[in-house]
Amino acid sequence: MSLIVQKFGGSSVADAERIRRVARRVVASRQAGHRVAVVVSAMEGETNALLTLADDFGGPDCSARESDVLLATGEQKAIALLALAIQQLGQDAQSFTATQMGLRTDSQHGRARIEHIDATRISAALDAGCVAVLAGFQGTDAEGQLTTLGRGGSDTTAVAVACALKADLCEIYTDVDGIFTADPKLVPAARKLERIAYSEMIELASLGSKVLQIRSVKIAMNYRIPLHVRSSFHEGAGTWVMREEDVMERLIVSGVTYNRGEAKIRVSGVKDTPGVAARLFGPLASAGIVVDMIVQNVSHDTTTDMTFTVPRADFARAMAIAEKIGPKLGSTGVEGDDGIAKVSVVGLGMKDHAGVAAKMFDVLARENINIEMIGTSEIKISVVIEEKYMELAVRALHAAFVEDGAETPAAEK
Amino acid sequence: MSLIVQKFGGSSVADAERIRRVARRVVASRQAGHRVAVVVSAMEGETNALLTLADDFGGPDCSARESDVLLATGEQKAIALLALAIQQLGQDAQSFTATQMGLRTDSQHGRARIEHIDATRISAALDAGCVAVLAGFQGTDAEGQLTTLGRGGSDTTAVAVACALKADLCEIYTDVDGIFTADPKLVPAARKLERIAYSEMIELASLGSKVLQIRSVKIAMNYRIPLHVRSSFHEGAGTWVMREEDVMERLIVSGVTYNRGEAKIRVSGVKDTPGVAARLFGPLASAGIVVDMIVQNVSHDTTTDMTFTVPRADFARAMAIAEKIGPKLGSTGVEGDDGIAKVSVVGLGMKDHAGVAAKMFDVLARENINIEMIGTSEIKISVVIEEKYMELAVRALHAAFVEDGAETPAAEK
Repeated sequence: MSLIVQKFGGSSVADAERIRRVARRVVASRQAGHRVAVVVSAMEGETNALLTLADDFGGPDCSARESDVLLATGEQKAIALLALAIQQLGQDAQSFTATQMGLRTDSQHGRARIEHIDATRISAALDAGCVAVLAGFQGTDAEGQLTTLGRGGSDTTAVAVACALKADLCEIYTDVDGIFTADPKLVPAARKLERIAYSEMIELASLGSKVLQIRSVKIAMNYRIPLHVRSSFHEGAGTWVMREEDVMERLIVSGVTYNRGEAKIRVSGVKDTPGVAARLFGPLASAGIVVDMIVQNVSHDTTTDMTFTVPRADFARAMAIAEKIGPKLGSTGVEGDDGIAKVSVVGLGMKDHAGVAAKMFDVLARENINIEMIGTSEIKISVVIEEKYMELAVRALHAAFVEDGAETPAAEK
Repeated sequence: MSLIVQKFGGSSVADAERIRRVARRVVASRQAGHRVAVVVSAMEGETNALLTLADDFGGPDCSARESDVLLATGEQKAIALLALAIQQLGQDAQSFTATQMGLRTDSQHGRARIEHIDATRISAALDAGCVAVLAGFQGTDAEGQLTTLGRGGSDTTAVAVACALKADLCEIYTDVDGIFTADPKLVPAARKLERIAYSEMIELASLGSKVLQIRSVKIAMNYRIPLHVRSSFHEGAGTWVMREEDVMERLIVSGVTYNRGEAKIRVSGVKDTPGVAARLFGPLASAGIVVDMIVQNVSHDTTTDMTFTVPRADFARAMAIAEKIGPKLGSTGVEGDDGIAKVSVVGLGMKDHAGVAAKMFDVLARENINIEMIGTSEIKISVVIEEKYMELAVRALHAAFVEDGAETPAAEK
């Protein structure tokens, strides 16, 4: 008998019929002898509908505290309905709001972080043979204020609950079949991964695979909770996200991913002296702009060029700041480009294979795609290219790294 | 500077524009120098929409616990939106769910009773210059389970909060102008009362005036909180509900009211021995049927007739019970009639006027209306008549007691 945490997103509980389907799935797990806690998001469309209501009263600038009180109703509605649907199948179930399940967060409304879960009550319900139905996405701070964890927060709730309960595994039910080697819409030859390491998943997630919230994977990695990302529409296995050691089939490249949500800014000819970077990036950070890649060219003489990327939504603000700060740094010019895309290859295997970067650049060169920026980490290589080449680049890299069977058996360490 | 609790029902917050109107009203009170706590119900239609959702999963028989979790989202949504609307007018506001405001109830889901309010947090918000926006209708029990107080529960929340805060008054905003001497739809000559005593209001409310929940008036009476029932659509004064001593303009009859929601059952020829009533009404109570009027005729010889009224919705069940029990009591027959109506006149003044009952019977006789049952209390006389005469009876009694200026100055005691 295992203790399983199951998470169902908003599309899985979008209407009464889907809620019933989730209920049947939960009850089947229970009848298979497992103890089951279920985390649900708000019904699809509910959160946006609530945000639209809030728009009438101040919109994005409205009180984050009250916005959280409003949004938290979405998940509360979903847990009550799912608990009722499970009960209708003859299985005891009990719903828990964040307050009731003791899910404590900090006080950052709209993007709160989980600090602690007191699993006593959930455990008591499970011990009594109940299915515990838990509200995702929401929390309470030390003062009893309602908070929310930000979009995708229900994944984090599920994993955090799994940690608190010392669950055997956490199943993330989604509307896709699992984690793919590339976006199947872009690359028809993309294939589903059977297993992937937490670290690879983190790189893939942060680069645009929308399946799983990055924060939840980090928590799962820290607490070694195996995740099973699978379809809520059929019974087939999905993708297991687990410890590196347990990923037997180690690929050089597990996936090719992309992000067209960024823009590039180059500040040319700034003085190459200590503190220059801080004077440029400090004001950007103060403005709440998250800088992703930063590249500083080898300096010619006493000046250098700084190039960086920012979310496309912040492009105009970031340009304004760069144009204001640049001259003070002696810059000879500031250029921006929001017609870019970032393409990355990710894989544990590349740790041991020096040739991955070279092969990547070669593949792109053969397609006549110019590389504007390069960034690397231990298990990821990213390039910035012109946006119009994005699909071509993803397909070419996927063909070269994944489809050509460029696999190695799990490397002995 | 007064401390005012204001209560707005679901029709007052039915849409964004109405929520804005409520916000302006609240801010006006605040700007007049008062400390203001506002209790709101769910937006009109919301509670029914939530119940419809629950219908998909077991309907009325579904878990009352989960049904309360679901319903409580309605008020939570309303407090967040109203707090945002108030903030948009430049006035600090903070919303409170039942859990956050420390509103403790017993554990009777769907019809919980308030046990205690810990007003510390609300007081702190008021002290900080905030408007406190409080969720009506909901509570939490000692275990932290969400409960609801039943339909009209927001009135009770408002009055209970007013007691806990030792408020100077509690304003109940409704879609009518105040308390009328009769239903204006039935009696065009009905007029708004300026003041009415708690006790009169209780009799009027329990007899079918839908303006104010009876339980809330009882609490207000116990704690001597003046209520001001007034329109949310204009600024004019409504009706004050207050202590008998403060109701200067004491009318013999303050109002004529009616109830067509009952049915009558007569059990004839039962043995007139001790314990008979208990043997009849015990099983009805066990079945959860609330008996309203009970009349026992003067016994002829050793038998008597028992006549009583029950809610029309329980008529069939009550008849079945009476037919089962009756023969055991020696009854010669059980007859039922659900084509009846109860009409009552209510007024503090009748305490000192013996002639009210006689005048009432005379008025009805002159209209050829037969009286089937009579029940009296200190400040109320009720009669049961054929339903088809109801409107006629109400109009005739209103004309005789209210329109004819049958007023007396406040009686010296």
